[in-house]
Amino acid sequence: MFNQLRQQFLQDPCLDLQLGQEDGQRNRVPLTNNCKKESNESVTNRQIEGIQSHDWQSHTATQGALYQINQRRLWEEIHKTSCFGLLSLKQGMNRLSLSVDDKLVRDYLCTEARLLGCQVRTDEMGNIFAIRPGRNNAIPPIGMGSHLDTQPAGGRFDGILGVLAGLEVLRTMNENDIQTYAPVAVINWTNEEGVRFTPGCTGSAVWASHIPLEIAHAMPDTSNTTTMKESLSSIGYLGETKASHKENPLSAHFELHIEQNRKLQDSQRRIGIVTKIQGIRWYRVQVLGRRDHAGATPMQERADALVATAKFISFLDRQALITSAVATVGVLNLERPSLNTVPGWASFTMDIRHLSEATLEKFESAIDAMANLLKAENSGLDFQIERTWHSPAVDLDPAAIKCTQDAAGDAIGAGQLMEMVSFAGHDSALTAMAVPTSMIFVPSRDGISHAPAEFTSERDCGNGAQVLLGAVLNYDSRLESQK
Amino acid sequence: MFNQLRQQFLQDPCLDLQLGQEDGQRNRVPLTNNCKKESNESVTNRQIEGIQSHDWQSHTATQGALYQINQRRLWEEIHKTSCFGLLSLKQGMNRLSLSVDDKLVRDYLCTEARLLGCQVRTDEMGNIFAIRPGRNNAIPPIGMGSHLDTQPAGGRFDGILGVLAGLEVLRTMNENDIQTYAPVAVINWTNEEGVRFTPGCTGSAVWASHIPLEIAHAMPDTSNTTTMKESLSSIGYLGETKASHKENPLSAHFELHIEQNRKLQDSQRRIGIVTKIQGIRWYRVQVLGRRDHAGATPMQERADALVATAKFISFLDRQALITSAVATVGVLNLERPSLNTVPGWASFTMDIRHLSEATLEKFESAIDAMANLLKAENSGLDFQIERTWHSPAVDLDPAAIKCTQDAAGDAIGAGQLMEMVSFAGHDSALTAMAVPTSMIFVPSRDGISHAPAEFTSERDCGNGAQVLLGAVLNYDSRLESQK
Repeated sequence: MFNQLRQQFLQDPCLDLQLGQEDGQRNRVPLTNNCKKESNESVTNRQIEGIQSHDWQSHTATQGALYQINQRRLWEEIHKTSCFGLLSLKQGMNRLSLSVDDKLVRDYLCTEARLLGCQVRTDEMGNIFAIRPGRNNAIPPIGMGSHLDTQPAGGRFDGILGVLAGLEVLRTMNENDIQTYAPVAVINWTNEEGVRFTPGCTGSAVWASHIPLEIAHAMPDTSNTTTMKESLSSIGYLGETKASHKENPLSAHFELHIEQNRKLQDSQRRIGIVTKIQGIRWYRVQVLGRRDHAGATPMQERADALVATAKFISFLDRQALITSAVATVGVLNLERPSLNTVPGWASFTMDIRHLSEATLEKFESAIDAMANLLKAENSGLDFQIERTWHSPAVDLDPAAIKCTQDAAGDAIGAGQLMEMVSFAGHDSALTAMAVPTSMIFVPSRDGISHAPAEFTSERDCGNGAQVLLGAVLNYDSRLESQK
Repeated sequence: MFNQLRQQFLQDPCLDLQLGQEDGQRNRVPLTNNCKKESNESVTNRQIEGIQSHDWQSHTATQGALYQINQRRLWEEIHKTSCFGLLSLKQGMNRLSLSVDDKLVRDYLCTEARLLGCQVRTDEMGNIFAIRPGRNNAIPPIGMGSHLDTQPAGGRFDGILGVLAGLEVLRTMNENDIQTYAPVAVINWTNEEGVRFTPGCTGSAVWASHIPLEIAHAMPDTSNTTTMKESLSSIGYLGETKASHKENPLSAHFELHIEQNRKLQDSQRRIGIVTKIQGIRWYRVQVLGRRDHAGATPMQERADALVATAKFISFLDRQALITSAVATVGVLNLERPSLNTVPGWASFTMDIRHLSEATLEKFESAIDAMANLLKAENSGLDFQIERTWHSPAVDLDPAAIKCTQDAAGDAIGAGQLMEMVSFAGHDSALTAMAVPTSMIFVPSRDGISHAPAEFTSERDCGNGAQVLLGAVLNYDSRLESQK
């Protein structure tokens, strides 16, 4: 099947185009700035053969720099496994959480991990921990986690890269006979995208004790025909390991992810070192007014649910600008809308994000104050505001960040790095509540994500995996030095 | 069938309740203030028997006061014909324009009118003119027009009362052997409600030369499977008479309608004399922005179609308050809405009304200015504004109004009258562009309309028909005196 799929990719004009663009980039920039004695052309050839050697500058080298991941193998793995849920390269991935395709890619991950000598644990949330033993298996594994589920018309990289790069790190460790001090785990977190079961990051949120298992298990799918627990059971991923960072702990969590923004592209840097992840709060707001005749009801006598909603949205826009937050109303519904009827009921969603939890708290207070103000202005109106999700704003761990920074400096040179914050949410925002966490970003073309056109080049995927390997080995050394 | 239906109405608890309330009113207020020498009780009994006599004060009496319509017969006719399209009294009427039920009630109207000696003409828009000859058939008929179509869950009175009261007027004329100078016509205008084919008042608008026949004929139904012309043809009401006030003229147009507001109820008056009808303008607005990530896109970099829409709605609200207009956004749609995506496209409807066309013109200019302002503020945004309907603000005809006022004074006493404007749109707004027009309002319980709970009492329906008769006879006398 994989050969057949690969053939399909190579024949897909969309992929050809992307490979063409990537080849163009490849000719402009070498794989690593630190690579010496080699022309760009020879690097490219050796990349394709997958037999690259290394010649790192020894004065800055840390452990990861001694070993080289196989960039082409990772690239092929990304495309091989995208057979599970790929519509076409033009239509993108459709691998919703706990779907049959999600089961198949999970099965693949477990099989490959076992072949690499891992012990595979599945917890009560379907989170998969594929653990490569270390010299000291009494301490918790160092995790390399992200997610294999996608949006309904998503890309091939978002989340997926982080898990498959973890697998590539294990392969490189095996090939180089690396024995780590701590065990090292590849983790697939359940339902990061939150499309079929809302909200997302459910697996990591339960593991981090951010939401109770029972609530996550009871979450219905969008069609309201099954729950998350039933779906986990039906695809065979309702595990017995406790979904808890206390009972199934990690020493640290490293996540490689595409940037989903243009900052790396615009600054022509290759690696983003994430220092903070924005907090996210989601709300559902219902506005209760009164249906009235559009001609016969004077403006003063109306309780127009849509006018109140419009004032609310304008307020959110202003408030976000003032506080440097972002606020989005992405969904708005009216009840039995009619051109010549004053809307009596409206509902809308709010997505509010900021790097500071304190600012988010103040924003939430301002939202309540605005609702009260509008109610006071018009006694016919009422507001019901419900917070439906909360992914906390977090500072990532300085020690884990240092390990990543050093690894990235070794792998591609400090001049190629960029410290940044993540404005998108990630499983790492949840793991950071429980364990030292660091995130690595690689460039995402034009910042496009959650769309078929999402693209990160083979070289950037490889760079990311290389930095992931180094970061984990650096953190492992740190753990050993602390024993 | 009618007996069976009548039985059904009498068994319907909803109707019982309404009859009960009406009976309560009947005991408090006599049928006419001018009725003398009779107890309320005797009036009630005679109403039920349908054999009322009259004893009008001669010093104010005009022609109509000499003859008494049959209130109970009209009431039964309203309920008999509501078998065409009635879901139940709790669910209301569903007699969409040019539906099978609309055909059946049209057939009934034509049959009854022919039995009364009328010549029945149907024009190219399906407008039905049932003409009772006068002494001088060289002059155009005096019209009594409204509509038999309803909303999808509408009431039993809106529009219907005006047509059936016209039929009752003809019956009364026949019973009393009244020979008018001018011919008198009952008119059913096609598609006043504008639900299945949008916008409404289509039949009267074409007749008044407000919109071209071709445009009305080509209007698709909501399912986009047929056009108005095809539907007219399929129910047998694509007539050959020209849909034109020039080629098929009227001398005047009188419309009896329920008020759809609470002004009569609140002031405890029984008849509204309409002097003006608000102008109505409908628009479809599309806002083109840019879809973006809700987390990664700073507020300053967004072209949020929904925020722009919200600012627009807030502006409409303010502008309407300032200008004493009414402005309503009743429908709002987003393209592929997603909680955590900045909306890239929105569309909404606008319904703007005012008694002055000049104010509406200024409002329209302000709308364009607002769109340009928002575009100037954010170059990523664009607006497309399309006017989809225009029912002009009109002053009704002073001479026709005088005839109605006199008739109402005779029938129920000048103290029971109230001059008012119509904030809802009506066929009369269109006929007023072509011929002298007057409207009579009767109380509508709690102002509810376009809903199953719409209710006007038997007595108020009867009062309205009585005033309609008097108004037509007064206008007829006026025409004769001018010959």
